[in-house]
Amino acid sequence: MGGVSHHPIDVALPQHVEEALTTYLASRRASGESMDPSFASAVDALSDFVLGGGKRIRPTYAWWGWRAAGGDPDGELADEVLTAVSSLELIQACALIHDDLMDASSVRRGKPTVHIAFGSRHREQSWLGSSERFGMSAAVLIGDIALAWADDMLFAAGLPSEVLRRMSEPWRDMRTEMLAGQYLDVLTQARGDSSPDAALRIDRLKTAAYTVERPLHMGAAMAGGSPELIDGLRAFGADIGVAFQLRDDLLGVFGDPEVTGKPAGDDLAEGKRTLLVALGMQFGADILDIALGKPDLDLDTVEEVRRALVKVGAVDAVEERIEELTKRALAALDAAPVAEPAATKLAGLRDQLHQAGLLKLIIVRVRAGLINSS
Amino acid sequence: MGGVSHHPIDVALPQHVEEALTTYLASRRASGESMDPSFASAVDALSDFVLGGGKRIRPTYAWWGWRAAGGDPDGELADEVLTAVSSLELIQACALIHDDLMDASSVRRGKPTVHIAFGSRHREQSWLGSSERFGMSAAVLIGDIALAWADDMLFAAGLPSEVLRRMSEPWRDMRTEMLAGQYLDVLTQARGDSSPDAALRIDRLKTAAYTVERPLHMGAAMAGGSPELIDGLRAFGADIGVAFQLRDDLLGVFGDPEVTGKPAGDDLAEGKRTLLVALGMQFGADILDIALGKPDLDLDTVEEVRRALVKVGAVDAVEERIEELTKRALAALDAAPVAEPAATKLAGLRDQLHQAGLLKLIIVRVRAGLINSS
Repeated sequence: MGGVSHHPIDVALPQHVEEALTTYLASRRASGESMDPSFASAVDALSDFVLGGGKRIRPTYAWWGWRAAGGDPDGELADEVLTAVSSLELIQACALIHDDLMDASSVRRGKPTVHIAFGSRHREQSWLGSSERFGMSAAVLIGDIALAWADDMLFAAGLPSEVLRRMSEPWRDMRTEMLAGQYLDVLTQARGDSSPDAALRIDRLKTAAYTVERPLHMGAAMAGGSPELIDGLRAFGADIGVAFQLRDDLLGVFGDPEVTGKPAGDDLAEGKRTLLVALGMQFGADILDIALGKPDLDLDTVEEVRRALVKVGAVDAVEERIEELTKRALAALDAAPVAEPAATKLAGLRDQLHQAGLLKLIIVRVRAGLINSS
Repeated sequence: MGGVSHHPIDVALPQHVEEALTTYLASRRASGESMDPSFASAVDALSDFVLGGGKRIRPTYAWWGWRAAGGDPDGELADEVLTAVSSLELIQACALIHDDLMDASSVRRGKPTVHIAFGSRHREQSWLGSSERFGMSAAVLIGDIALAWADDMLFAAGLPSEVLRRMSEPWRDMRTEMLAGQYLDVLTQARGDSSPDAALRIDRLKTAAYTVERPLHMGAAMAGGSPELIDGLRAFGADIGVAFQLRDDLLGVFGDPEVTGKPAGDDLAEGKRTLLVALGMQFGADILDIALGKPDLDLDTVEEVRRALVKVGAVDAVEERIEELTKRALAALDAAPVAEPAATKLAGLRDQLHQAGLLKLIIVRVRAGLINSS
């Protein structure tokens, strides 16, 4: 980011977000314990989840949306804004805890998911009834607590009323877009809709709108950004958000386990209906019918799927789409009146899209194999 | 309510609440459909649930809390207050939809519960995957939508910022008390804690605080009620709320199916750990060990449990507790500076506690049987 100076808060944003969450959750633990001592175990589980990991992506975008509209990290509202953007992590906690339950996922960030952890606790204590049902109930309620507390944390951040009012639209739509995206995802899987269109619609709601577009919108609205700026940031966020998801989809199939932290071909084994997979099916990569959703997928089959996806042109199509989306996103950003250093920071996200060097290497290797064997 | 005149809104409150909910949900359906057309099915399920029944108890208490602090139904904020108190029904929708899922209940208000209805839809459409899991996912997400929209509806009600700020404390605590009460309920059942103390703690959070005390508090805070008034209303609500629950517990065992709308002894079959049951066990009504949680409970066993609960003194103990709580509640109400007609209205709730005529008759009949057979 040559020449553009960054404020100390800008460069240590995740730590600031974690501090704000630590402070808030501690205060809620104290008041929760006074309601009933047993409730503390629910609050502790939520705190461990929220403070135990995560890249703080949504607070980061919201912060940079605020900076893009001229928000001043030395200004008198900076602390309040930090608290407000940190509350996004509580929405995300609800999304993940409930998503893990719906997907029956057992591991998250290297630890048991909430429903699994509470199920185990029930089993260890030899409590009455079904351990699975107990785990499910705890996960439902702890996710609910996170969702309710996100609103409380935002409201308690100490922002002036007119700021809260300005950001009420993105706040409202962001939460609903997240839930609508999850619902659409569940519905699409049930219907067996493997069309590229369905995959893209879910990406737009779950990733682009909820993760990038609305946090930027919320941040800019907090600083009183102009409609022109907000439209530009939203257009940028919507496109770059989908581009990020498409890159993630490629990583899910071609990524090096050492980089992704997940087994090779994990997305295939999980049966994820990504755009990559949808295009692969449309273009005739029939091996997907066998590999998709197969829990004990072996590496040979993963390699076979990789070759097929490259050969039928699904990888090229996804890479082209990423390219187009990125170009369009950056054009929208360029045209918007974004204040520095946010303009440089946001444009720099493009580079992150191209930094997936190991991903490239694997795709290149697969391509080379295809050439050698043809 | 001799001599005290009521405003037209006072007497038709449920209809006004339903109108506010209908308007709000229609606006969210329109914006939800523009996110994705499939999302409309989730919104419709929520609307059917919210508009399909319910006594609007929490909005009613919140309205009377506002009236108690001098809120004027002809004043300029009356519409906004109606919308704000109606949003409590969305919190309750979340509570019931998630509660039904956790309890594996199949019927609510004479209709299939949300998770059952969506499971059936999945089965009828021969969709992919497990119907049960699909129903669970839909119920989790639709409950989440209700919880998020409760906050949105409150914020969008159009209340002045200082009103929102005044009511933020009861709003915050009410939602957490509801969830803490549910969590404690789940935990207590799992631990097999059948103590009277555990039963009372759940009643205090789930029923008293969430249903009566906090809605009154929220209403009074909206109208800028004095600390003295708010303390009085909260003391009244906390005690009368538990009294109502204890009466419900008696109805769950002794109630006439024609009046309660539930099978005789339904609470026993469900295995509910009420104060009545807890005292029964403590006092040696051993038949409870056999009857409690037995799904196909026959009427003879229900009668036997009834006789045992009367004989060991559990019914008397609960009735005494109701009497004490009611007395203390009314004393708190009398001491508080409550405006008319709210004072008369709230005091009238006591009469509702004693109107359970058929309940009395059944208890009297059981007592008579005990005397005749002894």
